[in-house]
Amino acid sequence: MSKGLDHETLNENVKKVQYAVRGELYLRASELQKEGKKIIFTNVGNPHALGQKPLTFPRQVVALCQAPFLLDDPNVGLVFPADAIARAKHYLSLTSGGLGAYSDSRGLPGVRKEIAEFIERRDGYPSDPELIFLTDGASKGVMQILNSIIRGSRDGILVPVPQYPLYSAAISLYGGSLVPYYLEETANWGLDVKNLRQSVSQARSNGITPRAMVIINPGNPTGQCLSEANLKELLQFCYQENLVLMADEVYQQNIYQDERPFLSARKVLLDMGFPMSKEVQLVSFHTVSKGYWGECGQRGGYFEMTNIPPQTVDEIYKVASISLSPNVPGQIFLGLMVNPPKPGDISYLKFVQEGKAVLESLRRRAHIMTNGFNSCRNVVCNFTEGAMYSFPQIRLPPKAIEAAKKLGKVPDVFYCLKLLEATGISTVPGSGFGQKEGVFHLRTTILPAEEDMPAIMESFKKFNDEFMEQYEDYGGYSRM
Amino acid sequence: MSKGLDHETLNENVKKVQYAVRGELYLRASELQKEGKKIIFTNVGNPHALGQKPLTFPRQVVALCQAPFLLDDPNVGLVFPADAIARAKHYLSLTSGGLGAYSDSRGLPGVRKEIAEFIERRDGYPSDPELIFLTDGASKGVMQILNSIIRGSRDGILVPVPQYPLYSAAISLYGGSLVPYYLEETANWGLDVKNLRQSVSQARSNGITPRAMVIINPGNPTGQCLSEANLKELLQFCYQENLVLMADEVYQQNIYQDERPFLSARKVLLDMGFPMSKEVQLVSFHTVSKGYWGECGQRGGYFEMTNIPPQTVDEIYKVASISLSPNVPGQIFLGLMVNPPKPGDISYLKFVQEGKAVLESLRRRAHIMTNGFNSCRNVVCNFTEGAMYSFPQIRLPPKAIEAAKKLGKVPDVFYCLKLLEATGISTVPGSGFGQKEGVFHLRTTILPAEEDMPAIMESFKKFNDEFMEQYEDYGGYSRM
Ligand SMILES: Cc1ncc(COP(=O)(O)O)c(C=O)c1O
Ligand SMILES: Cc1ncc(COP(=O)(O)O)c(C=O)c1O
Repeated sequence: MSKGLDHETLNENVKKVQYAVRGELYLRASELQKEGKKIIFTNVGNPHALGQKPLTFPRQVVALCQAPFLLDDPNVGLVFPADAIARAKHYLSLTSGGLGAYSDSRGLPGVRKEIAEFIERRDGYPSDPELIFLTDGASKGVMQILNSIIRGSRDGILVPVPQYPLYSAAISLYGGSLVPYYLEETANWGLDVKNLRQSVSQARSNGITPRAMVIINPGNPTGQCLSEANLKELLQFCYQENLVLMADEVYQQNIYQDERPFLSARKVLLDMGFPMSKEVQLVSFHTVSKGYWGECGQRGGYFEMTNIPPQTVDEIYKVASISLSPNVPGQIFLGLMVNPPKPGDISYLKFVQEGKAVLESLRRRAHIMTNGFNSCRNVVCNFTEGAMYSFPQIRLPPKAIEAAKKLGKVPDVFYCLKLLEATGISTVPGSGFGQKEGVFHLRTTILPAEEDMPAIMESFKKFNDEFMEQYEDYGGYSRM
Repeated sequence: MSKGLDHETLNENVKKVQYAVRGELYLRASELQKEGKKIIFTNVGNPHALGQKPLTFPRQVVALCQAPFLLDDPNVGLVFPADAIARAKHYLSLTSGGLGAYSDSRGLPGVRKEIAEFIERRDGYPSDPELIFLTDGASKGVMQILNSIIRGSRDGILVPVPQYPLYSAAISLYGGSLVPYYLEETANWGLDVKNLRQSVSQARSNGITPRAMVIINPGNPTGQCLSEANLKELLQFCYQENLVLMADEVYQQNIYQDERPFLSARKVLLDMGFPMSKEVQLVSFHTVSKGYWGECGQRGGYFEMTNIPPQTVDEIYKVASISLSPNVPGQIFLGLMVNPPKPGDISYLKFVQEGKAVLESLRRRAHIMTNGFNSCRNVVCNFTEGAMYSFPQIRLPPKAIEAAKKLGKVPDVFYCLKLLEATGISTVPGSGFGQKEGVFHLRTTILPAEEDMPAIMESFKKFNDEFMEQYEDYGGYSRM
């Protein structure tokens, strides 16, 4: 007789989940690392793991919150600046019991207020702290919202392809149906509303009702920054089709072009005025994991709800209560992110310099990578306008595709495994994010240290060009 | 047309969830607090919120991990002891990128190793770090395991009644069926295997297959500590019935009697030898939120799997990967909890004194509370053998039950609301944990400061005795 945790009796939805970012490639890379090979982990957007230093001021504040007894220590001023001390006192005053007490399940009211003020400054419209929920990273919020929406396999969620696999994985886990819509590689991964319409009508003809739509702006893995016109079109589309818009805006600080600064879906929606501004249901996500913060390990995220009925907000609150409270240090990081040092503060200049240095270096790295990829045989790559990734198309020769099939591997997995074995560069195959049939990509982060970049790109080029040499038979390529 | 996040179209399982610990009573208490009333929050086991101080050494270590630049500061020795500095360096060496980097989705390998060593010391059997997964608090681990087991409403999970509502809530959320088994109030909330058998056969006759069984040891809300003989019986039962045992052992440090020291389900299972030691599937949970740590806000938990097939472990790993990584500071707290200062370390004495002071005070408070409740009219209360709660039975007069019904309230909710309005003491009605039909309880934590305890119990007694005076008609009581 089988038991509850035997593999064959597990919840089928759990088994169906696919999660490539930490899939076969990552597992193989971990093995190779254990065997002593030097691995360059570019599979996850994890800046500190690749040497990015944390911003000093927020770390000082959180360290003091962890060690509140230091606030009475006569020597504290020797190791912490006065504004960090003041800020730690401020955050401790927002808790009842410090970092060791569960907070309200939605997060500390004082931090939610700071977030609301940030949103108001950013968008020019007031925001209600009662509609902001803190979470252990944006991922947990995304999962909670999907879990609330999805009732079964006839509920569809529109997801961009290529997409960050959090979405496909969570939709599988909760038993819904992913409805893909394709981003246009030839238009720098732009979003074409025609594609959306097509996806919706195809889903409908399969008996699936699209109930929500995900956008990732700036995009992961594609890096595109949506224009205001584009955002307007897609909000109009959500309005017409009665779709909840889930706006994943975790990369809003990561912009590497100047023509299209970040615009939140919320601002564009509210700009569009009545009736849309009161009708479209929107949930927006943000995090301390990205931007020039990169505080992934702290797990600080939030979501903000617009036009969600109060009864639904109550249900979401109730479900959040089951796991009691998001981690409190992560909440303090969020407070600091939305309320950074101000001109005149002791730590202001240093803080600004540290942040700028990160973003400027990322922009330079985005250029080095795009140029590097485009100099390789059979590789074409859009510029990384935003976020932290490069997503080159790899035009695999038919002989390489055959060789992969013989080994029972998806062709891009085959290519990425070979790349890993040859160079130690750990990427994620494009198939992990979804891509058009017969077109192949890989995703890498732009996060390796700037000084290492040229050598990494050289090592990539050497591998790639030899690979192409080996498999090319001048017969033709996979091509979009 | 209805929209994805309209209340009537939400996932029904989300709506079905009940979570009393932060339910009507908590919401009313929060309102009263906003209005300026002094509230004594005894609804959640949240020690720091009621004034318990964090242990100094772990906070020093984590503060230094948050501020690694201090490790090079010539003044660091003025505010941190040398062993905290050394330990911070140790934990930073276990990360790649410090607290700001996502860890492996199962947690840092080095911390999992320290946990395995702790388990081996505790139980006398080796433990495998690969079978230990860290989580954002034990709650998240419990939810993940239930989500893996439950396939639909015909899958049953045996849960003690009364129980901590994490279990009932998560079972609803994942669409399974809760199969209650009753603890024996007259036997100090002991677990009688006869009740288990009855529950299983009743579930079967309703078409439900029990697939797992939950024990909470020491118990919440009941405080009972299971004996070795009891644990053996119930493991035997799991073996015969092919049940996964989920052993919630988060209160293993909180023991207030000396006859029955804490024994882990794992130790008892392995003591029972082959075939059971190789057959019974067991998942055990622990946390930094309880014990003399009480670091609830840090969200550090783990689960350890025994006899779970590797393929299942892989699936659980995959699902954990969707949300990338548990928070890293919480992982460091776990490392410190399982590997505390040792005799001879600079911080050893202080650490031991702080921990002992907390536990000894809790034991005294357990006595004050039990005695206080037992001195009240129509209240009977078992001694809190372990955990952090007191769960007195309130024998409500028929007129009180009628009065409650008139207001559309469950009788114990009616009583607890009156208590809250009269005294500011915020408790949870017994109905939130489950109780036998017609029997009423409330749960309070034993966490208010020791010096406040006598006044709180006096204020309770005054309210209760007046309440009984008002509703008693000498006609009889609700009674077990
Ligand atoms: C598009 C996108 N959304 C969400 C996340 C998750 O972020 P967090 O660390 O806040 O869970 C990521 C992380 O890489 C991401 O790329
Ligand atoms: C029995 C029991 N299990 C689990 C938990 C959750 O603990 P954590 O803070 O680790 O999620 C609690 C919290 O009160 C509890 O009482």
